[in-house]
Amino acid sequence: MTSYDTAVIGGGVIGSSIAYHLAKCGQKVILLEKGRLAEGASSAAAGMLGAQAEEPQSEAFFNLACKSREMFRAIAGELKECSGIDIGLVSKGTLKVAMTEEQAVHHKRLASIHRQHGEQAEWLDVAAARAMEPNLSARICGGLYIEKDGHVQAPELSLAFAKAAAVLGTVVREHTAATHILRENGVVAGVETEEGLIRCDHAVVATGASGSEVAALTGIHVPVYPVKGECFSVTTNAPLLTRTVFADGCYLVPKAAGRIVVGATTIEGSFDRSVSLAGIAGLLAQAQSLVPAIADAQWEKAWAGLRPQTRDGLPYIGEVPDCKKLYVAAGHYRNGVLLSPITGEAIAALILGRTPRVSIEAFRLDRETCSRANADKEGDVM
Amino acid sequence: MTSYDTAVIGGGVIGSSIAYHLAKCGQKVILLEKGRLAEGASSAAAGMLGAQAEEPQSEAFFNLACKSREMFRAIAGELKECSGIDIGLVSKGTLKVAMTEEQAVHHKRLASIHRQHGEQAEWLDVAAARAMEPNLSARICGGLYIEKDGHVQAPELSLAFAKAAAVLGTVVREHTAATHILRENGVVAGVETEEGLIRCDHAVVATGASGSEVAALTGIHVPVYPVKGECFSVTTNAPLLTRTVFADGCYLVPKAAGRIVVGATTIEGSFDRSVSLAGIAGLLAQAQSLVPAIADAQWEKAWAGLRPQTRDGLPYIGEVPDCKKLYVAAGHYRNGVLLSPITGEAIAALILGRTPRVSIEAFRLDRETCSRANADKEGDVM
Amino acid sequence: MTSYDTAVIGGGVIGSSIAYHLAKCGQKVILLEKGRLAEGASSAAAGMLGAQAEEPQSEAFFNLACKSREMFRAIAGELKECSGIDIGLVSKGTLKVAMTEEQAVHHKRLASIHRQHGEQAEWLDVAAARAMEPNLSARICGGLYIEKDGHVQAPELSLAFAKAAAVLGTVVREHTAATHILRENGVVAGVETEEGLIRCDHAVVATGASGSEVAALTGIHVPVYPVKGECFSVTTNAPLLTRTVFADGCYLVPKAAGRIVVGATTIEGSFDRSVSLAGIAGLLAQAQSLVPAIADAQWEKAWAGLRPQTRDGLPYIGEVPDCKKLYVAAGHYRNGVLLSPITGEAIAALILGRTPRVSIEAFRLDRETCSRANADKEGDVM
Amino acid sequence: MTSYDTAVIGGGVIGSSIAYHLAKCGQKVILLEKGRLAEGASSAAAGMLGAQAEEPQSEAFFNLACKSREMFRAIAGELKECSGIDIGLVSKGTLKVAMTEEQAVHHKRLASIHRQHGEQAEWLDVAAARAMEPNLSARICGGLYIEKDGHVQAPELSLAFAKAAAVLGTVVREHTAATHILRENGVVAGVETEEGLIRCDHAVVATGASGSEVAALTGIHVPVYPVKGECFSVTTNAPLLTRTVFADGCYLVPKAAGRIVVGATTIEGSFDRSVSLAGIAGLLAQAQSLVPAIADAQWEKAWAGLRPQTRDGLPYIGEVPDCKKLYVAAGHYRNGVLLSPITGEAIAALILGRTPRVSIEAFRLDRETCSRANADKEGDVM
Repeated sequence: MTSYDTAVIGGGVIGSSIAYHLAKCGQKVILLEKGRLAEGASSAAAGMLGAQAEEPQSEAFFNLACKSREMFRAIAGELKECSGIDIGLVSKGTLKVAMTEEQAVHHKRLASIHRQHGEQAEWLDVAAARAMEPNLSARICGGLYIEKDGHVQAPELSLAFAKAAAVLGTVVREHTAATHILRENGVVAGVETEEGLIRCDHAVVATGASGSEVAALTGIHVPVYPVKGECFSVTTNAPLLTRTVFADGCYLVPKAAGRIVVGATTIEGSFDRSVSLAGIAGLLAQAQSLVPAIADAQWEKAWAGLRPQTRDGLPYIGEVPDCKKLYVAAGHYRNGVLLSPITGEAIAALILGRTPRVSIEAFRLDRETCSRANADKEGDVM
Repeated sequence: MTSYDTAVIGGGVIGSSIAYHLAKCGQKVILLEKGRLAEGASSAAAGMLGAQAEEPQSEAFFNLACKSREMFRAIAGELKECSGIDIGLVSKGTLKVAMTEEQAVHHKRLASIHRQHGEQAEWLDVAAARAMEPNLSARICGGLYIEKDGHVQAPELSLAFAKAAAVLGTVVREHTAATHILRENGVVAGVETEEGLIRCDHAVVATGASGSEVAALTGIHVPVYPVKGECFSVTTNAPLLTRTVFADGCYLVPKAAGRIVVGATTIEGSFDRSVSLAGIAGLLAQAQSLVPAIADAQWEKAWAGLRPQTRDGLPYIGEVPDCKKLYVAAGHYRNGVLLSPITGEAIAALILGRTPRVSIEAFRLDRETCSRANADKEGDVM
Repeated sequence: MTSYDTAVIGGGVIGSSIAYHLAKCGQKVILLEKGRLAEGASSAAAGMLGAQAEEPQSEAFFNLACKSREMFRAIAGELKECSGIDIGLVSKGTLKVAMTEEQAVHHKRLASIHRQHGEQAEWLDVAAARAMEPNLSARICGGLYIEKDGHVQAPELSLAFAKAAAVLGTVVREHTAATHILRENGVVAGVETEEGLIRCDHAVVATGASGSEVAALTGIHVPVYPVKGECFSVTTNAPLLTRTVFADGCYLVPKAAGRIVVGATTIEGSFDRSVSLAGIAGLLAQAQSLVPAIADAQWEKAWAGLRPQTRDGLPYIGEVPDCKKLYVAAGHYRNGVLLSPITGEAIAALILGRTPRVSIEAFRLDRETCSRANADKEGDVM
Repeated sequence: MTSYDTAVIGGGVIGSSIAYHLAKCGQKVILLEKGRLAEGASSAAAGMLGAQAEEPQSEAFFNLACKSREMFRAIAGELKECSGIDIGLVSKGTLKVAMTEEQAVHHKRLASIHRQHGEQAEWLDVAAARAMEPNLSARICGGLYIEKDGHVQAPELSLAFAKAAAVLGTVVREHTAATHILRENGVVAGVETEEGLIRCDHAVVATGASGSEVAALTGIHVPVYPVKGECFSVTTNAPLLTRTVFADGCYLVPKAAGRIVVGATTIEGSFDRSVSLAGIAGLLAQAQSLVPAIADAQWEKAWAGLRPQTRDGLPYIGEVPDCKKLYVAAGHYRNGVLLSPITGEAIAALILGRTPRVSIEAFRLDRETCSRANADKEGDVM
């Protein structure tokens, strides 16, 4: 019977990145996905690398996000070489647009904090913003230009991690649900699946938006729950935008070939992945108010995904308290794509007994889940 | 070399119906389609049988439409038997809703005219209309209930005609463009295609929204031009509507399995079949104002088709003036599905030397194309 | 908090039929599906109603199958009326072809047994078989003509049950996984889902090919396991076949519009739903040897599904031994479509305290799972 | 009314490359496509850059092909930069496999000719070939290793040319059929479309596999006709092949993510784009005999395209003899993807009055179409 160094449960962007990083270090890995690779949130994402554009949850989170963003250039090259897949990395920056004067004040304050942390962020008044993106509405109140927040193709990234892992020897099994994690003397010994037991020395649970799925496998309660995001895409022959336009409640991400992804609603607590008419209508109105010329663009399609949110807004990355060699990587919310390289690398480091390049202490599983309240006290921004 | 009684050029709902009606009468037929069967307007249509709901163009047209509507029950049975395809005939009526008092006056007058022509049409005030369709907005001003205006599945109807014709011996050739009609002594002798000459005694041009295509084949100028219609569809588990809701600028057609087709914009003069964001946004707003609960429905998809409009709003059905045994059936605008049975039967009658059951004199090819002006003088309704 | 008479877990053809039959009797039902309705085996099936064509497992099974087959005419009408969906019922019979003399002997013996049980079955020599289906190969050794074994559209049937149930008031929830069945004093009290507890008086588990899923919900071990079946479809303009052609290892089911579904491989023990090249190659060879003219047909697509097999080849239909008002309907293998009406009716009868019209004693959950060994002693056929 | 420097008719890989090369040189260009961009042969192609793998038609052709192949590295970079689209260039070489000793002799002779022309080509015996590609069958007789024959993603390449042209100012119009080329005093003056006249100084006809379409627009007879090619694709988790495997009648092209494209049949003289069962069966058998392990790969899909063949096997690239500033680029057969850069550049050079970097004299429109006979006399290889 084959035995593996590590079994990774979950073939989304996080699980696939973990498998890839382990395989790169020479581990014998099996990647188990209950459905198809990257069929959940990982494929629904717009792929933004919004380390600065997204509202930060805490300083630890901000550092993690910026470090992970830095990894993408190298990751893009490696994955292309190994899997043949181009992850569509675009590094043309993001305009975090203010629609009101209040938002403008907020954004300027954010810029100053980013600069204190050594990151570029430049406030542009409406004329400067529209000089950069001429199709922006004249009714905006300016925007924060964030040079380093690019984007990738989320489905390609996820698949590339898994396929590259396969090239490096990882066994990839789709349609294989893990039902139980076998422990012997408080240490992982294997993963039960419907097709039988898989022996392994380490196991990682990276299963997505269902807290009860994590609980069923690990025995610990991790407060992960789904927040549905609805999106749509349009195309134009000549591109309308060069940079990502990011506003409160709506973003527009300019992809290859004149395609723009417009997202996203945030609907809590349902596993339903359908797209509602109301969701589309709301996004349509916001997109038109940000970029009026989008009215003439061609409709492509609409879809939805379930982001795995946590109660304190921070992901869980670490070992399960009462079971050695069992790890969880979950709850990355809107930042799964952005955080996939650093999460993959960090879990690999834990498994290999190395020190992660950035501290993941803040994301440990036994933290108080009310940690956000504390973070909030430090200020509304970070 | 095989010779055919008739070559039908165009595998949309009109050409396919003609082929079917000829095959039923024992003719040896070849049906030529330059692309795929039913890939144009015939598949994009919502499939309404709006003989009374659509604004009438003339008395002759109204009679033609009502007669064709009557044929559907029998046609549905025949096509199911012969091709196995269910055309999805639903005969639950249409509510032609008035959104303003002015429209209410117009609709009541229409009802009275319909009744004068022997057709049922009943005005319902807002309470009665909402008793019939509880999800209708309370802000409507009533509606005209038209019992006989049902609907079918447009793609299935077109395909069923073609496949039933095939079962009856018709040769169906997709990806075969007719390039020229061969005449000998002023009579049709064959159809040139890129794969060679097809000998035939009669030819019918039923090619859709391009007047220049008709002209290139027949040598006569028929003022047919495209009017794009954009649509989308949604689904719900329990149906929102029982009857078609038809208003100025927007209709909602309740299909099987809780699906609703919402249409349609009218954009003149372009062959572009893309769906614009603005088109979707407009339909969304109208649909929500008619049936507010549709906001919670699930988005399915959007599409567009090109309706073949004519200058006087009437189709062309008849023989080409200077070429014997060459026929045209074109320009059915929003009524191609509705008029397909009667058009197929009438062209078959002409070819077989029989008298069509309803006069098609008003639709002859050598009419003055300004005939609509005359019709208009008779009144704004009919 | 809403409480339901019955919660049905599993939105495939079996669960949907149960929901429909309960709703028809006035029950307040909720139908829970972890993914999308009919996304598993129910949509992959070719839809044969092979009560006689399939090798019988036992007399009880044969009776169940024949009774269920009889129900389809009425079911087709009801579902069309209620949901608008045509289930594509075709009642043109099946030819169970013998490719060897040995098979011919077997088939003739089968015919005699069928007739003893009051069912029609007629042996045709090769000339008679080919008179019936001229495109059959001359190399067959004759066939058994079974008049009553028709077929339906499997995906439409499943969806029609669910949508008709919805019209009758059933709440249908997709993307909702049941995680636990709540018992109070040995009686069902509710169903836990990731979105919370659903109170109900009865619960039915109809979840498909995973025995461990049944076990996790019911606490009892039911030996259900997947047997993958790969299929493909082709189309022709004029139909190649009128009746289903059913041979050892390959069947061809003639659908509407000249479409033929060719199936199916049988691959045990994997949940993998991918289609292998080897599977396609094998089916292609068999289909061409049965109906040589299929070589010129147009390729449409290939797919696979997981049939829920049981150790003794019989489904499980009944109450869970140690929990009142908890039922299982599982393990219908290749006969889920065929048995869906009688299974839905029987479970509804159990729940409503009525006697099922046909005995389901042989399918009870506490039978010896080695019952097939006994059946086998009675003879190799039944 | 807008006037253009050049109107390019045909939005396949050739027309799009021409538009791109003209736009790069500052021309004001309009690209007219009657359907959707790249919907014909350009998207169906496997994307091989088989300058040496394909049997050469003549020395001029061989030089053209090798020069075009060299352009891909730069083109890939430019198109990615300009359109955001990755064309999937893979430069890992091709193994032109011999299945018989006779083929081995032929291939060795080819290698020697290639080397005489300054191109690498190395004969490998069966052991060496299998050392390079371990999944090759042991029953091959060796192969020619051609280092420089890589491949690209054909649909992406075509789209990238068009979208990059759009970014550079080209107006791209889909669903716009050119019906006539307007000449004034023997010089191009415009292009008639169904939506009106487009004024332009130059026009290029790059319309694909229909000779009569070229004739209708240019007035000259160009012997271009369709040769259908059927293909299918499979996927594996770990790649089966690194290099393209090219044999007589079948090739396997390893794409990103473990995908393999298997092609292609050659069916002359039909515009029918359907895939036949017989075509799939033949390719399946050949692919399995070349790479037995492909039997376990996952089926993805099948498709077909129409290659534009000419009577002498050479493309037409040049000015129309009797009309100044009217150009044709047609008949690239299996080499449209490979020849698209050089053809685009050469036509751009002609239009701009420059000398193409490689002579296109052999491809002029007024050549004797029996030129191939002459070429043949020079030897069976080149």
